[in-house]
Amino acid sequence: MASPKKRLQGLVAATITPMTEHGEINFSVIGQYVDYLVEKQGVKNIFVNGTTGEGLSLSVSERRQVAEAWVTKGRNKLDQVVIHVGALSLKESQELARHAAEIGADGIAVIAPFFLKPWNKDVLINFLREVAAAAPALPFYYYHVPALTGVKIRAEELLDGIQEKIPTFQGLKFSDTDLLDFGQCVDQHRQRQFAFLFGVDELFSTYNYLGKKTNQMLEAFERKDFSSALNCQFCIQRFINFVIKLGFGVSQTKAIMTLVSGIPMGPPRLPLQKASREFTDNVKAKLKSLDFLSCTD
Amino acid sequence: MASPKKRLQGLVAATITPMTEHGEINFSVIGQYVDYLVEKQGVKNIFVNGTTGEGLSLSVSERRQVAEAWVTKGRNKLDQVVIHVGALSLKESQELARHAAEIGADGIAVIAPFFLKPWNKDVLINFLREVAAAAPALPFYYYHVPALTGVKIRAEELLDGIQEKIPTFQGLKFSDTDLLDFGQCVDQHRQRQFAFLFGVDELFSTYNYLGKKTNQMLEAFERKDFSSALNCQFCIQRFINFVIKLGFGVSQTKAIMTLVSGIPMGPPRLPLQKASREFTDNVKAKLKSLDFLSCTD
Amino acid sequence: MASPKKRLQGLVAATITPMTEHGEINFSVIGQYVDYLVEKQGVKNIFVNGTTGEGLSLSVSERRQVAEAWVTKGRNKLDQVVIHVGALSLKESQELARHAAEIGADGIAVIAPFFLKPWNKDVLINFLREVAAAAPALPFYYYHVPALTGVKIRAEELLDGIQEKIPTFQGLKFSDTDLLDFGQCVDQHRQRQFAFLFGVDELFSTYNYLGKKTNQMLEAFERKDFSSALNCQFCIQRFINFVIKLGFGVSQTKAIMTLVSGIPMGPPRLPLQKASREFTDNVKAKLKSLDFLSCTD
Amino acid sequence: MASPKKRLQGLVAATITPMTEHGEINFSVIGQYVDYLVEKQGVKNIFVNGTTGEGLSLSVSERRQVAEAWVTKGRNKLDQVVIHVGALSLKESQELARHAAEIGADGIAVIAPFFLKPWNKDVLINFLREVAAAAPALPFYYYHVPALTGVKIRAEELLDGIQEKIPTFQGLKFSDTDLLDFGQCVDQHRQRQFAFLFGVDELFSTYNYLGKKTNQMLEAFERKDFSSALNCQFCIQRFINFVIKLGFGVSQTKAIMTLVSGIPMGPPRLPLQKASREFTDNVKAKLKSLDFLSCTD
Repeated sequence: MASPKKRLQGLVAATITPMTEHGEINFSVIGQYVDYLVEKQGVKNIFVNGTTGEGLSLSVSERRQVAEAWVTKGRNKLDQVVIHVGALSLKESQELARHAAEIGADGIAVIAPFFLKPWNKDVLINFLREVAAAAPALPFYYYHVPALTGVKIRAEELLDGIQEKIPTFQGLKFSDTDLLDFGQCVDQHRQRQFAFLFGVDELFSTYNYLGKKTNQMLEAFERKDFSSALNCQFCIQRFINFVIKLGFGVSQTKAIMTLVSGIPMGPPRLPLQKASREFTDNVKAKLKSLDFLSCTD
Repeated sequence: MASPKKRLQGLVAATITPMTEHGEINFSVIGQYVDYLVEKQGVKNIFVNGTTGEGLSLSVSERRQVAEAWVTKGRNKLDQVVIHVGALSLKESQELARHAAEIGADGIAVIAPFFLKPWNKDVLINFLREVAAAAPALPFYYYHVPALTGVKIRAEELLDGIQEKIPTFQGLKFSDTDLLDFGQCVDQHRQRQFAFLFGVDELFSTYNYLGKKTNQMLEAFERKDFSSALNCQFCIQRFINFVIKLGFGVSQTKAIMTLVSGIPMGPPRLPLQKASREFTDNVKAKLKSLDFLSCTD
Repeated sequence: MASPKKRLQGLVAATITPMTEHGEINFSVIGQYVDYLVEKQGVKNIFVNGTTGEGLSLSVSERRQVAEAWVTKGRNKLDQVVIHVGALSLKESQELARHAAEIGADGIAVIAPFFLKPWNKDVLINFLREVAAAAPALPFYYYHVPALTGVKIRAEELLDGIQEKIPTFQGLKFSDTDLLDFGQCVDQHRQRQFAFLFGVDELFSTYNYLGKKTNQMLEAFERKDFSSALNCQFCIQRFINFVIKLGFGVSQTKAIMTLVSGIPMGPPRLPLQKASREFTDNVKAKLKSLDFLSCTD
Repeated sequence: MASPKKRLQGLVAATITPMTEHGEINFSVIGQYVDYLVEKQGVKNIFVNGTTGEGLSLSVSERRQVAEAWVTKGRNKLDQVVIHVGALSLKESQELARHAAEIGADGIAVIAPFFLKPWNKDVLINFLREVAAAAPALPFYYYHVPALTGVKIRAEELLDGIQEKIPTFQGLKFSDTDLLDFGQCVDQHRQRQFAFLFGVDELFSTYNYLGKKTNQMLEAFERKDFSSALNCQFCIQRFINFVIKLGFGVSQTKAIMTLVSGIPMGPPRLPLQKASREFTDNVKAKLKSLDFLSCTD
């Protein structure tokens, strides 16, 4: 049976996987990265091996090593380390789930398979259940990304059946823009200790360097100081909007995080390509003009 | 350097991966499957671990075993065994390419990554080159599926650059409906020994049981007997159209092949689900009404 | 030169076009409809001949008559009557714009053409300018529906150039889910008297019968009573979610509005079909279980 | 009752609507255009006011005038003049159908409405029937463009029901890439006098200037001279491929036709924009290098 659940609270950053110039994983900076998130950004929860972390570009063996590094380095510093164990192959997903349990992760998350696709809600839940069953003591999160997976199943409908079949179900990472669907998830499950993480992966990735400002926004809202909250929100949006116009993705996230944190994230691995020199120069110049974000370079 | 190339000629069937009722690979029927293709369908080339073969639903270790089984059982019976080694992770794709070379496969094929995606033609070619380089003696085929990969790169444009960068390039499996693009591929490369396999995977999968009729069509066309060729084509299309209306995919292909060949293909693995009893009954009834295809059940 | 602008404030309902059982426009109930919106729903602004009003299913001559009816019946009762004059044909759009000015409408709105499509932002603005110029004294709203029009132009980018070229530009109806884009529109234009109407057309259509509850939500939020605001929001969302699961569109909006208001909206016109009896029965039963919405039937 | 049907045979060109530099219709060159099609391209059937003709960018009144001009100028020269009367508004479509009958057109074609959309096959057929009934003596063609209309109805399925409901149904313009669907249409209706026109509108538009070469290809195929047919096909494809790479649409078709025929087609109307000078220069240079197409400029 699942141990009493510790609710996931506060911002959750989707971690980048740092790499060397040759595209190998650079484990040596993960400790420093943990400290940066906690001390500089006020972020104490992480989502490892997701889209931002190039999780599906890594081999299964690398995904295990990366998960282990974050759990180890995060011990006594981070609140929760959730490992994304989704894969196109159920067997590999199960292997990663078992491994996450062995290393003492705080939860696992799974995306719906998106090459061959489940026909309907029931088949999707069956697939997820098989993964969840491989880590029966770990909280389970469904990573809902309808735009990528093409599964036309609203999250709210999924919640109906998922709890009976997956006793460890504890919430979802809602990477969609259907606010009605999200609202219904929150509404129908208010009394339970589920976590509903809102945001596309690109947003989660920004908590790596905008966590502090985002926390300020949340605190201002909490004390009903809307004017300050709105100012924080506009600061954040202006920066994200700026990089979106330059072309924003995982490669660019690595470049920005390197500039802001001073920790070398390195290039991405193929099929991605390093952010262009022009992009980096533009961001560097922009950072110099901001007062809430600075460039360590 | 690549050995002198043996051109891929004739129908190429995308193989199904036979499974037991519990979803484990059923290696025991692969020998029988080879004989069926050669003797009953006149098909002597196969494409292993593609969409039809649930290649991306298998673990890397299973993909190696399946590839090895087909190469071993096909020896001295099949003309060419092409192994699909595409994967979301470059490292895993390279491992599979190396393995294909070790076991003596006749070629490898690679789909463009479709989670994180290459930005442009050059990055895609870079990715493919890294895979091809892991099996420098094997003919390399690009598996072009723009609908799945979202890569808006026409095959014809890709051909421009690919040959310099990938000396083992020997053609493509063109799974798109852009006939102009396909026509241009054929036109611009008429003098070279490239193979341009036309057809979406669902079509390739039908050669498993419609290979004989398809060969009859090709022979009639070859001797300019259009009327017979057209009759063959309509026979084939009527059957495919019939199953498309019932809902057609990999699960259904497994059910049809089991009925027609008598070799148990078993259910698919999650995220797919076994074809419904209703589907199977409908197909069985249809087969009984046809004279060019029969039901072994 | 444009007259001093009266800012659009409060909810704006997308009006339904009432029809007889034979699909002809039923002008006789528009006066009653105006009174219902103002007195029962607290809605004083309307958007005429949009998606909900089947504007593009009407002939140009009918669109003129419908616009005139709303302006006439709304006089001294409604705050603003905005006429959607978008059409695939620029000439027809201009004719409708001129007509809106003649009858004394308070503004016009235009969707981007979506059969042949503008290549880029500049061409789109040129098109909109030609329409706006036909009604030089009327406030102009851009009806931003990227999902329908396929124009991959973010609203925020459009705002950069639109004001110089279209002096009557006064805001947009933002029917998209890109909250960052919407946030940037609001941020960059806070000081000006622009109106940024947020919501897909389905949402605007619900103000026809959920206007009162929506106003309660806005008032609660205004006085920082989040708990009440949230309760209102969940009431609204639960109802909309209920109908979405049954299949929700313009036909269904007509049926719901007929039930809730008691004013006969009639069936839609082809290519739409009347909501099914089953839908109506389901909604009727649901309405009987709600305390904030009732059924007049 | 419908008069005995004259079957549509041979190439059908989608006509361009010639315009003046100010975007008004240039009726003065239509007679010359007819002669060019018949004498230089061997094309004797036309499809008026379709996508290529910017039909939906014209006002209803202009569409009537254009239709009349082609029918009048084509008399005793062209075999068949088919008028596209599709519109988002059923009433306008009916008006155009009645008008086509009055002026003596040889047939009408209708696209499925694509803003508000029919839910299913039956509703679509009901819509089409209402249009067809407005011209009960004219052959009726369904203009099948699933990519534009989003109606997920295969043409083959539509044929099942359409003949009972629309006695004047005489075929379809199949603007899709689903060859199986097209094959089934042809197969199931071989004995009837239906016309199945294959090709996306861009292809139909090329018969304006590639009609002669296309006829050569068809003749070569007819006499089973595959080698010549293939050479013709590659000539055609190379040219189309060349312009597709430059960016190909209605604007570009106008520019190419002006260059090849010497008849001024003028610019397109907004929301389209004139092809760039760079495009025209590139095409001019290309034409000079070809022996089967020349530039009159």
